[in-house]
Amino acid sequence: MATFKTVRGMRDLLAGDAEAMTFVMDKARETAQLYGYSEVITPVIEPYELLSAKSGEEIRSRMFTFKDLGNRTVALRPEFTSSIARLASTSLKNEPKPLRTFSVGSVYRYDEPQRGRYREFYQADFELIGTSNPVADAEMILLTDRLMKAVGLRDYAFKLGHIGIIRGILSQENVDEKTQNAILQHMDKKEFDDAFKLIKSEECLSTLRGSLELKSDDVFKTAEGIKSHVEGYCKAADSAEELKNVLKLVTEGGCPIQSVEPVFARGLEYYTGMIFEVYIPELDIALGGGGRYDKLVELFGGEPTPATGVAHGLDRIVLAMQIQKTTPTRERPKIVAVVPVNEALKGEALRISQILRAAGVRVELEVMGRKMNKALEDADRRKVDFAVIVGERELKQGAVAVRDLAKREQTIVKIADLTKTFKI
Amino acid sequence: MATFKTVRGMRDLLAGDAEAMTFVMDKARETAQLYGYSEVITPVIEPYELLSAKSGEEIRSRMFTFKDLGNRTVALRPEFTSSIARLASTSLKNEPKPLRTFSVGSVYRYDEPQRGRYREFYQADFELIGTSNPVADAEMILLTDRLMKAVGLRDYAFKLGHIGIIRGILSQENVDEKTQNAILQHMDKKEFDDAFKLIKSEECLSTLRGSLELKSDDVFKTAEGIKSHVEGYCKAADSAEELKNVLKLVTEGGCPIQSVEPVFARGLEYYTGMIFEVYIPELDIALGGGGRYDKLVELFGGEPTPATGVAHGLDRIVLAMQIQKTTPTRERPKIVAVVPVNEALKGEALRISQILRAAGVRVELEVMGRKMNKALEDADRRKVDFAVIVGERELKQGAVAVRDLAKREQTIVKIADLTKTFKI
Repeated sequence: MATFKTVRGMRDLLAGDAEAMTFVMDKARETAQLYGYSEVITPVIEPYELLSAKSGEEIRSRMFTFKDLGNRTVALRPEFTSSIARLASTSLKNEPKPLRTFSVGSVYRYDEPQRGRYREFYQADFELIGTSNPVADAEMILLTDRLMKAVGLRDYAFKLGHIGIIRGILSQENVDEKTQNAILQHMDKKEFDDAFKLIKSEECLSTLRGSLELKSDDVFKTAEGIKSHVEGYCKAADSAEELKNVLKLVTEGGCPIQSVEPVFARGLEYYTGMIFEVYIPELDIALGGGGRYDKLVELFGGEPTPATGVAHGLDRIVLAMQIQKTTPTRERPKIVAVVPVNEALKGEALRISQILRAAGVRVELEVMGRKMNKALEDADRRKVDFAVIVGERELKQGAVAVRDLAKREQTIVKIADLTKTFKI
Repeated sequence: MATFKTVRGMRDLLAGDAEAMTFVMDKARETAQLYGYSEVITPVIEPYELLSAKSGEEIRSRMFTFKDLGNRTVALRPEFTSSIARLASTSLKNEPKPLRTFSVGSVYRYDEPQRGRYREFYQADFELIGTSNPVADAEMILLTDRLMKAVGLRDYAFKLGHIGIIRGILSQENVDEKTQNAILQHMDKKEFDDAFKLIKSEECLSTLRGSLELKSDDVFKTAEGIKSHVEGYCKAADSAEELKNVLKLVTEGGCPIQSVEPVFARGLEYYTGMIFEVYIPELDIALGGGGRYDKLVELFGGEPTPATGVAHGLDRIVLAMQIQKTTPTRERPKIVAVVPVNEALKGEALRISQILRAAGVRVELEVMGRKMNKALEDADRRKVDFAVIVGERELKQGAVAVRDLAKREQTIVKIADLTKTFKI
């Protein structure tokens, strides 16, 4: 039979890559605990209708959609927020607010594979449901800051915006929601000319164009500038004020924002308020991003429920750590190889391995039936710390030989004293 | 829009259920480390050809199979072993043996949903590749024993068999492999009459029937009995001898086997040697199981590579823990609610939250803008341990009020001393 490869866009995480991924997942979980988020585990397979309702045309067209054996149209989740909004409108609808949920797992999008982009990728997701207070939005950015720090990233920068600024202007000019979505999709891809072609009002156009140029090194000035610039559009002006509030709170919380952008969109259609992303200078794809979505829970049949959230791209964070060479070396407990001098002693070797493991020592039992020298050579290559050599002569005295593979020293140790030797 | 439900057979794990699942996953990971297994993360989506090659008709017909947008026939993995065998025949083929891999994640089978059985479920998977030594088979059972103990299960029992006993008899009677597979599928479902109908030779039938009755309370006697019973079939007799060796090693390793079964099959077609399962008395579905598969890596284009493995059903282990009421209460660090006395102080409250979090204290910041009493009532209900109340009067002295919600005591604490108060 021919050799099998992974499906295009999928990949295996082996050795160091898997270790880096579980390290980042652990840090995300620690962050969740520090900020009071409870873990929930939702299915990878969800109803197509749920996932497509408000994800936007871009993502909708790239979902893994199929019929299950019961002829249900289902899809693999392209993100977590729809599933959590489903929970907030059903099982968790009577839970007192705020709800703080955390999820970590794989999501699926049929994108063109490239560096840092796969068709199966991993996200950590935080949702804070039940409040429109800007302090909740600030919390999304602060916990992202904490995760970036916890994995050892440097020089990362936050970009902050508010979807209500553009939507506020467009709504007041009676641009329908579908066209608004198309305009925002273009803006998300930096296709500004295509976006502007969809706008008929000259005043609207000039306000939007003017907004694009509104950038100052001082983010507070930029935010203030946006507010003045859009003052003729009352909803847009309110949004700019909200943006200012979030900016102020985040800064008070100890996380500087490097850039406030008036015209800034994200791929997902469900956002209604502040939106943000985080980048490192070496990579032009966001490591994480999120925003406010005040209509989604209601759209899914729940009560009107304001909410905000963030998702972190764990593969990209791993890539960023590799680029910045921050991949952490977790302190590794000692590893012991247990090797019988001949096959007849493998039962004894097994018994001694079990004694060590019961004491919490990490043991690799020799299972290849190799000669002593071969087994020790291999243990050395695999950076095992100690070898416990099980031989008849020593066993008669209730002992084994312990070899320190780094120091190349060997001593005889009573089996009763063995666990003490590998003080853990 | 109508309320959304999960797709039939899928479910959400919330609160205690999610906590129990991550607890079991952590214990599986600890077990992997203790036994020297390296974590690998493989895709949920694999080529249909890979997954269907040797999984058996039963599982093949219940896979989630579909075409991706590039018209590739893919499926969601129904188990991990095929993916790991793929690795062993490709990326990892030049790695020195033995390979010890560990994986944890979701797998998919379109079964009829019932208690402990879902269409998306979670497994921990251990594979030991590169040796035919029975000590490797013993290791699968011993690490399963360790996991059962680590999650606090009692009275669990192991069932041990060897697929080579039945296959050895059938092969010698020239029963083709396809018919062998059908017979084993029937046996797996305890449809012995259907299985026997497929066998023509009277001698073969009487040997198989006789085997069924071979059960003694002494598992060593049972194993010995099987060996004598099948001595006319040399391959079957060799298999019985292997079974005896594994039984002996596992027992020496400190894990008693409760039952040795001569006629015992598992759903998967790729097994070639010893097979086992573990049960608790209260539940008639296996919590885990595995066996030897010496042909799979070769079938996938690799070198001839003996291998053995085990998969643990994490949902069933969680269910077993609930049945046995062993669900562990992990010691929970203290949780602190930070509450500003009015909205104007929310920036201060945020700043103080950040100080606490930087010191590793778990903080839930008040984000609902509720009145003090409401916020404290809610904190109490949520079993928060302390409330830090941020008020103007105390702030002027660089202090806050700290309320112990269990003891209902309140003291004034300098902000500089705050982290010490919640000694963690």
